[in-house]
Amino acid sequence: MRIVQKYGGSSLKDLDLVRMVAARIHKTVQNGHQVVVVVSAMGDTTDELLNKALQVDGPSSLSNLDFLMMTGEMQSAALMAMELTRRGCLAQAVSGAQAGIRTDQVFGQARIVDVDPKFLESLLDRGVTPVVTGFQGVSVEGFFTTLGRGGSDLTAIALASALKADSCEIYSDVAGVFTADPRMVPQAKALEALSYDEMLELASQGAQVLQTQAVLYARQSGVTVNARSTFESQAGTRIETLEVDAPRPVTAVALDTHLTKLGLVGVPDRPGVAARACERLSEAGVNIDLVFQALSHENARADIALTVADRDRPKAVQVCQATLTELGGLALVVDGDIAKISAVGFGVRNHVGVAATLFRSLANAGINIQMISTSEIKVSCIVARQDAQRALNQVHDAFGLDA
Amino acid sequence: MRIVQKYGGSSLKDLDLVRMVAARIHKTVQNGHQVVVVVSAMGDTTDELLNKALQVDGPSSLSNLDFLMMTGEMQSAALMAMELTRRGCLAQAVSGAQAGIRTDQVFGQARIVDVDPKFLESLLDRGVTPVVTGFQGVSVEGFFTTLGRGGSDLTAIALASALKADSCEIYSDVAGVFTADPRMVPQAKALEALSYDEMLELASQGAQVLQTQAVLYARQSGVTVNARSTFESQAGTRIETLEVDAPRPVTAVALDTHLTKLGLVGVPDRPGVAARACERLSEAGVNIDLVFQALSHENARADIALTVADRDRPKAVQVCQATLTELGGLALVVDGDIAKISAVGFGVRNHVGVAATLFRSLANAGINIQMISTSEIKVSCIVARQDAQRALNQVHDAFGLDA
Repeated sequence: MRIVQKYGGSSLKDLDLVRMVAARIHKTVQNGHQVVVVVSAMGDTTDELLNKALQVDGPSSLSNLDFLMMTGEMQSAALMAMELTRRGCLAQAVSGAQAGIRTDQVFGQARIVDVDPKFLESLLDRGVTPVVTGFQGVSVEGFFTTLGRGGSDLTAIALASALKADSCEIYSDVAGVFTADPRMVPQAKALEALSYDEMLELASQGAQVLQTQAVLYARQSGVTVNARSTFESQAGTRIETLEVDAPRPVTAVALDTHLTKLGLVGVPDRPGVAARACERLSEAGVNIDLVFQALSHENARADIALTVADRDRPKAVQVCQATLTELGGLALVVDGDIAKISAVGFGVRNHVGVAATLFRSLANAGINIQMISTSEIKVSCIVARQDAQRALNQVHDAFGLDA
Repeated sequence: MRIVQKYGGSSLKDLDLVRMVAARIHKTVQNGHQVVVVVSAMGDTTDELLNKALQVDGPSSLSNLDFLMMTGEMQSAALMAMELTRRGCLAQAVSGAQAGIRTDQVFGQARIVDVDPKFLESLLDRGVTPVVTGFQGVSVEGFFTTLGRGGSDLTAIALASALKADSCEIYSDVAGVFTADPRMVPQAKALEALSYDEMLELASQGAQVLQTQAVLYARQSGVTVNARSTFESQAGTRIETLEVDAPRPVTAVALDTHLTKLGLVGVPDRPGVAARACERLSEAGVNIDLVFQALSHENARADIALTVADRDRPKAVQVCQATLTELGGLALVVDGDIAKISAVGFGVRNHVGVAATLFRSLANAGINIQMISTSEIKVSCIVARQDAQRALNQVHDAFGLDA
């Protein structure tokens, strides 16, 4: 079999872990498999490099920042390849550019446009195990690029597709995808398998097992991804093409506590007002998570509530304040004390009762729902952050996920 | 003008120095010149990386060691390019491979086979200052290589040649090439200019201003090199094609204290005996510096004395012991307490009196000469290490180099 194995920063914190992971890789090779390894930077290297860059005001120079950041993965790839070679498993560190990962030229967030695995194939032909630096590529013009944080998953999946690998294993410090975050919900269980679409909804909800772009790439290229733990031997979770009529109504519940709610209070209730606010935010590069408009009762004025990621809060507040003034609204309310609970699964679209079950379980627990949003396979509610963990356990229980 | 400027590790010890050097580069650009910068790794980075590699027994995996080592220059290039950009001097970090430096595949000591400056030209066309990582390239097969310690000089000279630069400036913490090492000879003076051949003899004598391979490349490609100080404004020393009939008999004197003398005592005095000893050392990868054979008076036996670099001593002792046994010699004498004084200049071949002046000045000072060697433009003597500094000053004075 040909297997791509990706090891993240938490699996490469120090040289002892590098040795442990190398032993695991070596064993797979000794079992007769061809392995292509993808590595992230070791432990805190990425933060250390970013800190150096900040000292020379580097972040304003994106192409040079990418050039700096990629050295983190290069060092871990080199050390891993050395350790494998020392063990008698001939290995070679390979950069993103050498691995043939061609990207567009959006520095810091580049997208893969195609992969030419020639160099990797030539190493495999000679019995050499390639250790590829994750998270990076090269643009058509020849500039080095990075795929953004977590992009090593994307590297692994793109290589698995280009190399027609039989399996793509993503190793981290968790044993797969759970029905809920086990740190928040003690009864949470690891899933055996879930679909790309379910994983996408979970990833964007902050489940942090697999990067969104990586899941999209896997879905598009049909690569089955196996998310498993570096430190345990369980089979982990497969992310693959699943039959739509899965027996369970909800696959997992997710929690996102990194959101801010912005309320534009008392804006004129006329067509296009909500659209204007959204446009302005989008022009400023702010992604809107949820948006909700409610009519207020006096003077034909309405309230618009929307949520954005915490990191976009300063920009969003500025844009919303300006929009409020332009529209002649009454006040801007900013609330960072919220959390989003989501139930994800194909059942959401097939079983009408899913949303009702969610709302009832929260109501029974005395938890107030501030905003609601539904999509094809997801129902989300905004609640007060202090209620978040209780709400998550409540919903996990209501859908019988601990069964 | 188009200028290549190379800054070594001592000019990039910390971020304050990076800022100072960036200001210098920026000024040159503001004066209307096109600048291509070449940088070494910052301060102790190279040693730190090597230390990491040692922890996983990396040095046995040469191709991965090169992959690791090159990250040092990549980081300093990125930080320098960021600092330049921050100052308003648009700059881009460029790896050896991107700069088109193609090498053979002798990892750790690769030689440049050709340079394709397309990528650099495209940056210069757009008004971007390239900051190239020194000391590295890429093999025809696509593996990253390093040129060996000090190889950044070679990078700068090769780029100056390929880019048809008007000038190639090598910056370090010394103000050029001196008539002797100023730490040993207080009267030593910086030379305005010297020839490639003289520089070669001085470089191999341990003058450490410019790497030997770099001087050879400069001579072959006709690049005039300007060795100057990062910290002072003097013009420095030009290394260039000089007329042979220079007025001075000796250009500079050099001292090498990193040598060991090996004496094979009482070997049979027949043809091929010295050759056999030299062959064996050369097969073992040991370079012989000087070799000298003297007839002893009894039993048609001879003594052979030779000098090797200190770092080769263990290997050389082993080989010489085996050779002595094979030849039926009497004893092996090892003496690490020696130094080599050399006088270098075109005058050595044109003025018969040079060697005589050297010997007489040492004799007058009561310094015993253990071995002598002469070449086209160099006379060398081996003396006791304790006499080294006195001998160097004596010879410097005898040739009027402080005038």
